Amino acid sequence: MSHTPLRERAVQIDGMRLLKTIGELAEFGADSQGGVSREAFTPADDAAREYLSRRAREAGLHPRVDQAGNLIVRIGPEPDGRPQLMIGSHLDSVTNGGRLDGAYGVVAALETLTVFAESGVDSRFEPVMVAFTNEEGSLFPQPFWGSMAIAGTLADPELAIDRAGESIREPLARAGGDLDTIDEAAWAPGSIAAYLELHIEQGPVLERRGFPIGVVDAIVGRTIFEITVSGRRNHAGTTPMPDRQDALVASSRLVLAVEEVSKQRKLCSVSTVGLLDVEAGLTNVVPGRCHLSVEIRDTRTEALQKAEQAIVDAVAAIGEETGTSVEVEVTMRSQPVHADPWLKAAIAETADRMELPHMTLSSGAGHDAQIIGGVAPMGMIFVPSEHGISHAPEEHTDDVYLVAGADVLAATAANL
Amino acid sequence: MSHTPLRERAVQIDGMRLLKTIGELAEFGADSQGGVSREAFTPADDAAREYLSRRAREAGLHPRVDQAGNLIVRIGPEPDGRPQLMIGSHLDSVTNGGRLDGAYGVVAALETLTVFAESGVDSRFEPVMVAFTNEEGSLFPQPFWGSMAIAGTLADPELAIDRAGESIREPLARAGGDLDTIDEAAWAPGSIAAYLELHIEQGPVLERRGFPIGVVDAIVGRTIFEITVSGRRNHAGTTPMPDRQDALVASSRLVLAVEEVSKQRKLCSVSTVGLLDVEAGLTNVVPGRCHLSVEIRDTRTEALQKAEQAIVDAVAAIGEETGTSVEVEVTMRSQPVHADPWLKAAIAETADRMELPHMTLSSGAGHDAQIIGGVAPMGMIFVPSEHGISHAPEEHTDDVYLVAGADVLAATAANL
Repeated sequence: MSHTPLRERAVQIDGMRLLKTIGELAEFGADSQGGVSREAFTPADDAAREYLSRRAREAGLHPRVDQAGNLIVRIGPEPDGRPQLMIGSHLDSVTNGGRLDGAYGVVAALETLTVFAESGVDSRFEPVMVAFTNEEGSLFPQPFWGSMAIAGTLADPELAIDRAGESIREPLARAGGDLDTIDEAAWAPGSIAAYLELHIEQGPVLERRGFPIGVVDAIVGRTIFEITVSGRRNHAGTTPMPDRQDALVASSRLVLAVEEVSKQRKLCSVSTVGLLDVEAGLTNVVPGRCHLSVEIRDTRTEALQKAEQAIVDAVAAIGEETGTSVEVEVTMRSQPVHADPWLKAAIAETADRMELPHMTLSSGAGHDAQIIGGVAPMGMIFVPSEHGISHAPEEHTDDVYLVAGADVLAATAANL
Repeated sequence: MSHTPLRERAVQIDGMRLLKTIGELAEFGADSQGGVSREAFTPADDAAREYLSRRAREAGLHPRVDQAGNLIVRIGPEPDGRPQLMIGSHLDSVTNGGRLDGAYGVVAALETLTVFAESGVDSRFEPVMVAFTNEEGSLFPQPFWGSMAIAGTLADPELAIDRAGESIREPLARAGGDLDTIDEAAWAPGSIAAYLELHIEQGPVLERRGFPIGVVDAIVGRTIFEITVSGRRNHAGTTPMPDRQDALVASSRLVLAVEEVSKQRKLCSVSTVGLLDVEAGLTNVVPGRCHLSVEIRDTRTEALQKAEQAIVDAVAAIGEETGTSVEVEVTMRSQPVHADPWLKAAIAETADRMELPHMTLSSGAGHDAQIIGGVAPMGMIFVPSEHGISHAPEEHTDDVYLVAGADVLAATAANL
């Protein structure tokens, strides 16, 4: 569809400026495979933060970096006393990711504050932009680092290390943060009146259904299982079939049982085995041990509970039927987070006024909004992802949708 | 069962000497995990060859190393004109293997020649011991190197390199061989009147059925497939189940179809997926590509053909049903090799005379006998493997069976 002309809106963003800033930001961490590798706390990430700070100052805004490395931009030098509307997303990318995941929402938030300042919008809320640090957890495997610090839910920040064992202390200091005073990054309870985040969908729904705008009703909860299947390692030529305790055969049945939990039994929305490792696998050896990573997602807590139980039951049945011993451990469990009805309605009404067709959908991916949504009312806006692709250099959204999404964000902020 | 006392035999081996030599040979390549790592062309392998040569000379026998690195021992300095009975097995082990696989048959062959020399047995055949080099192909992945050189079926020896890319030339020279004249290692057609090999079963059949002696009727043929399943790599949270082309789900169905080919459908005796690799697997990513190694074995050529076709058919059906593309390549195909009826009967009669219960069984593992069996009548004798374990430090056969097997070998050689 083409961009429907504006009928009524409180503010008007500068679409060309938005797209130019997205393009310039994508240079920080641009990699040789045509993607963006701007993992948190790398020099590219630091340089991107510097770039956005400079752009904010040039626009007459007031940037600062908090103790967790989040870039926070206000229109005035200090909070002006109005209820605070936080608008943001994350600045970091995965390794060899795309140019839009996180970055788009950050640039749109900066554009929103810029047009608010330029046009002197007199809104009920004071907009505050936040570019969260380390949402992806690519190098330092503590995803949602920045939003958790602001929400006050960051556990054991002292223990944060990267995959090579280096402490986060020095990298955080280079980003402008401070591990010793990181508690001060937390906002006081109730001080975030509302949170808005604009993001690419990272899935195929909006594109397929032909909607330029998605109103997020919930971000899925997720349970991750680590499973080890132990059979008996044996010679593939001399071990008769009835004597085998083949860990890969048992694991394969488990992969199909996990798929069935969502695809056939509809117990939850998605279920995946992303990793299956055959320990010391060889062509002529019956596999003795396999390791699997399993995850399930849904927006309903009770659906996750049922699907968890179904997987535990399948594990027990398969272990018994195949003569293998199967250990299951839940290594992560996050609850679904629902968008605030007031913010959902405000986004939908704004899109209606702008004659932008919209649909309600849930987010299968995690976002900073699920963290801030734990301490404040949360609303999210999606725009289509071409072919549903994300976390890859091919990640793409048409310019017309990028501008439309930022328009809805800014107008929603003004209309609240 | 206890060792049934000897009623009638042509020669009597020295059981204590046999066991002592097995123990001494196991010192060459003894590793820190309690196993034997005597891969071909390592210093341990060279030292083991030296040790056996010295033991042969001490017994008045005549050892030499041929151009392929095989240790060949005769009673006299030259062939004496009688038809030649080759008796042997391999000297090398897998990495972290056991003390018996290969070594047992080599030591028993040396013991056979020793008692022939000591007792002046006047047999119709001249016994010749061979300790084959690199049957396992652990470091230089050209298994059956030594037996193929003798059979004259070694293709492209010049191209033999180890896994690090080093040519076999220097290691072969250190073992006493010579790559430039390796063709001379081949025996003239018809010059091997018969071949006998004694080996541990490496499977559970003799132990379970309570037989001390197995008469091998055939060595299985084998087909190896390398299979690549290509789906579409995608986000595990945002990709709806119906949209997925999950390479691991398709691969798991393939693993079960391969098992079914032998276990339920009985098309061949065994079928195994030993290796399944998920390319760049991650917990939160729908797998895009997987690689599998599949093998089937049977003693009947037509069974192998039917099982091959069943796997090809399953691949096509699973690819279609899962929306993935599956490539199959046959990377190895060896034909079944049958033992010579005359030699089978001779082994069985000898065991009968010694009142050693015996049963006929096939070999699911590969042996030098299948190579020499291509150019000469072949017979094989098995003794039980405790719990069927082999290629592992726990590989074990009770002393009474080790002595019984060597007794049958020597007496069969004398009785032919």
